[in-house]
Amino acid sequence: MTHTSQELATFCKKKGFIYRSSEIYGGLAGFYDYGHLGTSLKHNFQDLWRGYFLSLHDNFHEIEASEIMHEKVFKASGHLDNFVDPITKCSECQVNYRADHLIEGAINKRVEGLIPEQLTNLIEENEIKCPNCKSDLMPVEVMNMMFPVQLGVGGTHKGYLRPETAQSPFVNFKLQFELLRKKIPMGLAMIGRAYRNEISPRNLTLRQRAFTQAELQIFFNPSKVNEHPDFEKVKDYPLRVMLQEDREANMVVERTAQELVDRGLPKFYVFHLAYIQKLYLTELSVPKEKFRLYELDDKEKAFYNKNHFDIEIDLNSHGFTEMGGLHYRTDHDLKGHQEVSKEKMDVVDETTGEKFIPHVLELSFGVDRNVYALLDLNYHKGEQRGNDVLALPSVFTPFYCAVFPLVKNKDPVVSKARDVYNQIHGRFSCFYDQSSSVGKRYARADEIGTKYCITIDFETLEDECVTVRDRDTTEQQRIKIVDLLDYLQKNQ
Amino acid sequence: MTHTSQELATFCKKKGFIYRSSEIYGGLAGFYDYGHLGTSLKHNFQDLWRGYFLSLHDNFHEIEASEIMHEKVFKASGHLDNFVDPITKCSECQVNYRADHLIEGAINKRVEGLIPEQLTNLIEENEIKCPNCKSDLMPVEVMNMMFPVQLGVGGTHKGYLRPETAQSPFVNFKLQFELLRKKIPMGLAMIGRAYRNEISPRNLTLRQRAFTQAELQIFFNPSKVNEHPDFEKVKDYPLRVMLQEDREANMVVERTAQELVDRGLPKFYVFHLAYIQKLYLTELSVPKEKFRLYELDDKEKAFYNKNHFDIEIDLNSHGFTEMGGLHYRTDHDLKGHQEVSKEKMDVVDETTGEKFIPHVLELSFGVDRNVYALLDLNYHKGEQRGNDVLALPSVFTPFYCAVFPLVKNKDPVVSKARDVYNQIHGRFSCFYDQSSSVGKRYARADEIGTKYCITIDFETLEDECVTVRDRDTTEQQRIKIVDLLDYLQKNQ
Repeated sequence: MTHTSQELATFCKKKGFIYRSSEIYGGLAGFYDYGHLGTSLKHNFQDLWRGYFLSLHDNFHEIEASEIMHEKVFKASGHLDNFVDPITKCSECQVNYRADHLIEGAINKRVEGLIPEQLTNLIEENEIKCPNCKSDLMPVEVMNMMFPVQLGVGGTHKGYLRPETAQSPFVNFKLQFELLRKKIPMGLAMIGRAYRNEISPRNLTLRQRAFTQAELQIFFNPSKVNEHPDFEKVKDYPLRVMLQEDREANMVVERTAQELVDRGLPKFYVFHLAYIQKLYLTELSVPKEKFRLYELDDKEKAFYNKNHFDIEIDLNSHGFTEMGGLHYRTDHDLKGHQEVSKEKMDVVDETTGEKFIPHVLELSFGVDRNVYALLDLNYHKGEQRGNDVLALPSVFTPFYCAVFPLVKNKDPVVSKARDVYNQIHGRFSCFYDQSSSVGKRYARADEIGTKYCITIDFETLEDECVTVRDRDTTEQQRIKIVDLLDYLQKNQ
Repeated sequence: MTHTSQELATFCKKKGFIYRSSEIYGGLAGFYDYGHLGTSLKHNFQDLWRGYFLSLHDNFHEIEASEIMHEKVFKASGHLDNFVDPITKCSECQVNYRADHLIEGAINKRVEGLIPEQLTNLIEENEIKCPNCKSDLMPVEVMNMMFPVQLGVGGTHKGYLRPETAQSPFVNFKLQFELLRKKIPMGLAMIGRAYRNEISPRNLTLRQRAFTQAELQIFFNPSKVNEHPDFEKVKDYPLRVMLQEDREANMVVERTAQELVDRGLPKFYVFHLAYIQKLYLTELSVPKEKFRLYELDDKEKAFYNKNHFDIEIDLNSHGFTEMGGLHYRTDHDLKGHQEVSKEKMDVVDETTGEKFIPHVLELSFGVDRNVYALLDLNYHKGEQRGNDVLALPSVFTPFYCAVFPLVKNKDPVVSKARDVYNQIHGRFSCFYDQSSSVGKRYARADEIGTKYCITIDFETLEDECVTVRDRDTTEQQRIKIVDLLDYLQKNQ
């Protein structure tokens, strides 16, 4: 059973995952809050992401940096001049639109990378009108998407809320490189907030004005881009890619890592591409057919990206949607900061003696988008069972288990249930619930993704066994209390 | 040995804990980044805080909310009208100063809560001049400290970066209360960023323009403010307080929780005050004499706070400094939001049938300040040992242990060391280091707070033992590799 995005949004709000920010004031377009369950799910994703990527290499580290940064950072990065969105205004009702999104929706074709004149032409050629009042649209202009912040008395200094977390590791590179004793490759990971003045924020948390990114910037020796010490491990791993040459045929193909290298992609790049796919298929349990790595062509990708694949998941009512990307950014970023800051960014590879400005491989993930995808992929409307089920993988679900006394106010059963709860709590995420019928409690537990419900009944007092009910099969098993922790551990 | 705050700042930067943001561009006043070690320390503090306070009650939950909020939120909260700082400008050199800070520094007396005219009078009476050029200062004026953010095309909508995290739980209260099935008390915790346009940011991360707060807002039934189910547990616990009546004598006294209740403080309040002190003395290992709970008097505290103690730690070269506070905010916040939003905020206590607008007890902590305090209290300059030592409690230290092969490039010793590292890594935070002499490696490990250094030597290959060296005593012990995990666990 599929669901619409509106159904998912309703579910997310009803159960306390995600809802509009400042809601009692009518909400604020493009801003969302995470309720208690959403917060837990988001933390679980972040923790997994952190463990997964930081363990890739001894010299990968996490940093945290201010969201408001110096104006010159964005001079150097190009954001001040180029981080613009194409907009078109209705000549009648004055509503503003993202021109590229409007055109893509109308002609069902990607228009990334086109200049305003080309977009204006497309609007005219295809006779695209204002969706609101059907009047003519005005020529496409650009608007900078960064939020400026005035600092000090009278706003004498200007900063910007960063539009991407990436600039923080770039600006921190030199200092961290010295702190970490000048070893290359070096990875700087960051999970943090970024801000963009989106013209049409929409689709719950898929396009927000404030969002969380999880990014790993790997600084490496460019002469080693065609090698990776662990490449052998992934060489035969089949990647699900939509390559430029298969775009016309709209065909996702499986290519082994080695085949992608033979086709011309650098080994260092393909190794990380494989590792990313494994995250999705293995850890997030995304069904294979709903996952693809989409290669951008020269028109679509930023000029400084030598290789660029988007990570995409096929979402209900949105189709394949970008979750992140793997970007070979070359020395574009550090070179830019060297030019503007006058700080030397070149380093020496102690193993070879080579001197160079490190190249950057960026592994970029939208945390809110990934959380959205986890909800979207695992939400099952109530048709079959009479209640909704959120079949989240155990590692992500806010509560792995729940403990129910069969009856309420019957002291021995209730106190036994509290005992069991106290044993589990702390080892596994767990909640205790004694209100309404067990059937209703199962339903509530299903809806928020609880994998196991553990019920204590009168028999428990005699046989020291509990009923463990599995969310996905609804099967129930009697398990001895002494074996319960092992059972929960094993079936995680 | 004490140290100056400049020495601490130098240390923090040199070792990769904290340094100025946008540093390659000369920094941005009031903004700091956390390097890889600082990030780890900060996460450790946040994780401990979260576990400590969320485990206080089954109905305490964490949420995450947008930092940019609706203008009306701050109309209701009073921030738009009243969140101002008193400033005075030099009549000659035009430099702006926080008037209250300038006066406090000059006359060594708190002036919190005074109005601009009173501050102007104090400047004149005490003949306080511009610290920069000694000229006369102009009359004190006020400036709103919030950062506005223009949203949408042409900035048609206005939001604000929140100046405190607290408003997010207040605005989320109604929805979360319903989601959590209308149980009172309910606690909403949040760890998040807040932003203030400080006129004179200073003292590393003690006064920043962007900072992290960890706050727990407990919504409770006001008729139950004089009870707490677990009060018995803390009744005889002695709290280190500076009460209003002892202010003149500048005297910190020990009063048991019961004594504070007898003096007139509500039990619900004192219970949490005791729990806060325990966090500092037990978990953060703050020496008793460096900790106090400072009671604000009516002039100092906000009019809506019925009870207000600041949590203070005696820092090197700063004296007792605010780390957070416990604020009995009554129904001020929810009432304000009810008035402006027209959403009813009253609830029914299911256990008593009473209907009321919940009162709020706020447990508020500055994360960056607490991290600063942990560094300040545990940093020991190198006089004694020849190298600096950071004697952080094990739960906070970025790396609990380190593994060193005695020699480098000697295969059996090195591969044995890697084996040992692989066993420990994952269970405990741990790094591997094989460069330079063991003495230098000990010194580097001390400086970043590593509790145990584990050295593998030639003998290890024969007796399967390693040398474990303790950071604080520098004593070394031979431990069997098979017992190592237990040893590390036990001595944590």
